[in-house]
Amino acid sequence: MNAPTPDAVETDPAYRAAVVDLLGVLAYGELMAFERTAVDATLAPTIDDKAALAEMATAEFGHFIALRDRLESIGVVPEEAMEPFRRPLEEFHEHTAPSDWLEGLVKAYVGDGIAMDFYREISAYVDDETRTLVEGVCDDLGHSEFIVDRVRAAIADDPRIAGRLALWGRRLVGEALSQAQRVAAERDALSTLLVGGVDRPGADLAEMGRMLARLTENHTRRMGALGLAA
Amino acid sequence: MNAPTPDAVETDPAYRAAVVDLLGVLAYGELMAFERTAVDATLAPTIDDKAALAEMATAEFGHFIALRDRLESIGVVPEEAMEPFRRPLEEFHEHTAPSDWLEGLVKAYVGDGIAMDFYREISAYVDDETRTLVEGVCDDLGHSEFIVDRVRAAIADDPRIAGRLALWGRRLVGEALSQAQRVAAERDALSTLLVGGVDRPGADLAEMGRMLARLTENHTRRMGALGLAA
Repeated sequence: MNAPTPDAVETDPAYRAAVVDLLGVLAYGELMAFERTAVDATLAPTIDDKAALAEMATAEFGHFIALRDRLESIGVVPEEAMEPFRRPLEEFHEHTAPSDWLEGLVKAYVGDGIAMDFYREISAYVDDETRTLVEGVCDDLGHSEFIVDRVRAAIADDPRIAGRLALWGRRLVGEALSQAQRVAAERDALSTLLVGGVDRPGADLAEMGRMLARLTENHTRRMGALGLAA
Repeated sequence: MNAPTPDAVETDPAYRAAVVDLLGVLAYGELMAFERTAVDATLAPTIDDKAALAEMATAEFGHFIALRDRLESIGVVPEEAMEPFRRPLEEFHEHTAPSDWLEGLVKAYVGDGIAMDFYREISAYVDDETRTLVEGVCDDLGHSEFIVDRVRAAIADDPRIAGRLALWGRRLVGEALSQAQRVAAERDALSTLLVGGVDRPGADLAEMGRMLARLTENHTRRMGALGLAA
């Protein structure tokens, strides 16, 4: 499979639309991640925990800025690129509002984890320049260790919460899939990145199956790291 | 009046306690400002407004980090320095939770404005190194123009809201004063920064009066900039 060259963003309208969608959904996703992480910080039990969440939130805002700058540099109004993803992302967050500090941590780790894995998979099909940006945004910011530590300590303290948090993890994935399906159905350009377009190769059915297997495996590994059954 | 020298933080225990209190209250104040601004971002009517608030919040977190680093560098555990101010600051924010986007903007402009003016006044009585840090934290981050613009536009659109927002501004100042009095009563070290200690000059009654006049004047000016009666 040959990935598009960076100038395809200028010369191939269908590819351009796909990249604009990808950057738009990622940008609004990071802005929402900033908000949700910052709101979760208000639930933090200690000042240190509060500061750790605030630091995660500012890193997410940094990603938003990088994506917004990139949209501007290719001549797109960032708000217009983000607008189509506003409702699905807001609905995802409305349907998965954490009821406490631990649910917030699990959501940040498991929910963001699967989303970032998915965007990394998609980035295999874009030009080098876009891929470098997407991979940077999807990089683990080193906060995972903090979350794993806090969740495991809470479960050690009261093993009964593991069941509730495991259910919560499943609900997060279910909601994420249902919003992702909605986006895929509505945004043809974005879907063709993955499945290919007229002149552009994409993933065949076998590769799609392998991708889903990788996403599921990583999700199970993350749940396990938290001490939860997937 | 001679300001203390930077080494007084090491050599004068009473002065050290005062500076630790000042940095502690400022640090927790900035962490709360981060949280509140980020929560207000969830109320923003447009993506641009959301991003502008998120940017303000990350700047506030940057201030928090600078203050926390300074506390660490003088050998203080930051959480311990912040702890005494946790309740008063949280109560202030609980009592002044904005009910909408505009109240949030007025609070950020008028509430932070008077707090920053106050800390700047106090910084006249500290050593150069501490003063530089405090002044940097109190610097207007250039977001005021954004807030003034949004609030004036909203009032132009519906002049009736000016009365409600003016009342809101008065309530903010009232709450801030009542929490400040509580802090002053409980934290002797911090109070002596302003009024002076055994070996340290402070403000006399006349200077205190002038300070209050300056704070009131600036507050009235800010309310006026928003198009509100103080």
